[in-house]
Amino acid sequence: MRFDLSSEGFVAARQRIAPYVRRTPLLPPPRLHGDPFPRVHLKLENLQVGGSFKARGVFNHLLQLHEEQRKRGVITASGGNHGVALAYAAHCLNLPAIVYLPTRASDDRVTRIATWGAQIFKHGRDWDDANFRALEHAEQENIYYVHPFDAEATLAGQGTLGLELLEDLPELDCALIAIGGGGLICGAAAAIKQRRPHVHVIGVEPVGAPSMTVSVNEGRVKPLQETRTIADTLAPRSVSERTLALAQRYIDEIVLVEEAKLIEAMRWLWRECNQLVEPAGAAVIAALLQNEAMIAQFKQPVAVICGGNAAAESVFGNYQNAIR
Amino acid sequence: MRFDLSSEGFVAARQRIAPYVRRTPLLPPPRLHGDPFPRVHLKLENLQVGGSFKARGVFNHLLQLHEEQRKRGVITASGGNHGVALAYAAHCLNLPAIVYLPTRASDDRVTRIATWGAQIFKHGRDWDDANFRALEHAEQENIYYVHPFDAEATLAGQGTLGLELLEDLPELDCALIAIGGGGLICGAAAAIKQRRPHVHVIGVEPVGAPSMTVSVNEGRVKPLQETRTIADTLAPRSVSERTLALAQRYIDEIVLVEEAKLIEAMRWLWRECNQLVEPAGAAVIAALLQNEAMIAQFKQPVAVICGGNAAAESVFGNYQNAIR
Repeated sequence: MRFDLSSEGFVAARQRIAPYVRRTPLLPPPRLHGDPFPRVHLKLENLQVGGSFKARGVFNHLLQLHEEQRKRGVITASGGNHGVALAYAAHCLNLPAIVYLPTRASDDRVTRIATWGAQIFKHGRDWDDANFRALEHAEQENIYYVHPFDAEATLAGQGTLGLELLEDLPELDCALIAIGGGGLICGAAAAIKQRRPHVHVIGVEPVGAPSMTVSVNEGRVKPLQETRTIADTLAPRSVSERTLALAQRYIDEIVLVEEAKLIEAMRWLWRECNQLVEPAGAAVIAALLQNEAMIAQFKQPVAVICGGNAAAESVFGNYQNAIR
Repeated sequence: MRFDLSSEGFVAARQRIAPYVRRTPLLPPPRLHGDPFPRVHLKLENLQVGGSFKARGVFNHLLQLHEEQRKRGVITASGGNHGVALAYAAHCLNLPAIVYLPTRASDDRVTRIATWGAQIFKHGRDWDDANFRALEHAEQENIYYVHPFDAEATLAGQGTLGLELLEDLPELDCALIAIGGGGLICGAAAAIKQRRPHVHVIGVEPVGAPSMTVSVNEGRVKPLQETRTIADTLAPRSVSERTLALAQRYIDEIVLVEEAKLIEAMRWLWRECNQLVEPAGAAVIAALLQNEAMIAQFKQPVAVICGGNAAAESVFGNYQNAIR
C-alpha cells in the first residue's frame, strides 16, 4: 500500500484544531540528580484535553464534517482514550455522540465519557466486538463513524504533535512513541521525518500486544489472536493497512516492554515528575528503564507521555474516607 | 514587626536556584468547554522538583551555607513537602540531611524522603512535637536547622514563583495561593506587589486549620489548639511573626474552604487537567468551586497549584495486582 500523509495536511490540521486543543508542555529540566536519562525531554501529552493525544485527531476529524453529518452526530467504539476524546470533542462542538464500550472498559474512563454527555452502549469483551456493533449501528441510522486510528484526518491530527516537537526541540534527533493502532506514532513520525528525515523514531509496544511488530515482520497486516497487557490503550488486536504502510516508511525500530516495567515506569513518573499516568503513558519510560543505552548516541531525544487516564478512583476514595 | 523582603533578594534567589529548580508551566488553555472559571490560569507548581514549591526556598537556603555548615549537613522537621524538598536538595548538593517526621506522616512522603537518602527519625503526633526534637538534635550536634517557612532565605526562594507569574501573565491582576505557614503566599505576594501593587492576593486556608486568619484577626501570632484537615501540609498550628507581618502587608483577603470541597477540587483537577494533586494543591480550586464570583472582576487571575504529593500508592498497588 502506498498510502502517505501530506505535509500540508499537518499544517492545515494544526490551524484547524488550535482553538480546541492544548499545545502541551515539555517537562522543564532538571529532573532528579542521578536521573538515568537526564537528556530525555518528556512531552506531557497527558496534559492534553481529554487526557491523551487522541483529542488532536478527533477534533481534526469532527471539524471537517458537513452540516448534515454534524446534525446526525458521530459514533465510535472505544473503551479507551479515543472514546473519551470523542465525547469531549462532541461536547465542545455541540454534536450528539455515541460511544460503544467493551464490558471491561475501566470505570474511570466510562465516567469521563458519561461526564461529557455521550450516549454509552456496552457490548462484548473486546474492542473488536464493541466495534462490530458500533459499525452496524452507524449504518442502520446513518451516523458518521469515527475510527480510532485508521483514517487520514485522524492521522493528520495526531501528526500535529510532531510539529510541536520540531519547534520546541531544535536539535531533536530521536523520538520514542508508544504504539497501539499506530495512529500517534505514524502521524507524528511522518510529520517529523518529512521535515527532518534523520530523526530516529523508536516505537514501543507491550510484549503482550505486539501487533505492529508482528505485522512489520510479516510484511502485511496480521491480527493477533489475543492481547494481554495492563496498557489497555495499546492493545488492539490489529493495526491497519494505513498505519502499517506508514510504519514501514517512518519507524526505525520497535522495542517490546514487559508488564512489570510498565508499573516501574508509572512509579518513576510519579516519583520524579509528579505525573500519574496510565500504563500506556509510561510505556516509553519502561523502554528506557529496560535499556537506557538505546538512546546513548542521541543528543536531544524526546519521550512522548501519550496519555494519563489512569484508574485513580481509589485515591479519591481514600481521602473521602479520611473526612468521614 | 516591621520585617519585609527585599526586591533584590528575589532576583538573587532566582539566579541562585535556577540550575536546580524547574520554571514550572502554566496549564495551557483551553480547558473543558463549560469550565466554570475559564479565565483562571493554573500555575502547575506540582511539577516542581520534589513535587511542591518547597524546593525553591530550600535550595535558596542551602546554597548560601558556608563550607563548614555544608560538611555537617542540615536538619529539619517535616512530615510534608518541606522534608521531601530538603531531602531532595541535600541529595543534589551532596550534603548529609536529617528529617524528623511526626508518626502520622504519609507513607508516600516518607518513601520519597528515604529515596533521596535523608536520615529519618519519627517522633510525636504533630509537626510541633517532631520539631521540638529536631531543634534539640540540631543544637546538640551543631547541625544547621532549616525552618519550613520562618526564614528570610526560604521566603525569598518562594518569592521566585511570583517573579515567574509576573513574566508569564502580563496582565496578572489576581493571585490565589494556599496558606500553610504562609511561606509561599508571603514570598510570592511580596515579589508580585513590590512590582505591581494593584494585584489582588487571595489566601486560602482549610476551615479546620485557619492559623493565618486567626492571627490576622487578632493582630498577633495566635497558635491554634489543634488543626483538623486532610490538607496536612496546610496545617501548622501557628504562623510566625515574619509571615504574619508580610501577610498584613501583602494579602488582601483570606477565604476558608471545606474539607468536602477539597476532595471535589482534587477530582476536578484530575478530570479536567489530568493532574493528581494532594488536598493542599487543590485548595485554590476548592475556593473557586465554593465561590466563583470571587474572581469575576479580574481579567487575568492565576491559581497556584502548590503541591502534588498525594497518597497514590493504591493506584500502583491495583495495577500491580492486575499483572499477578
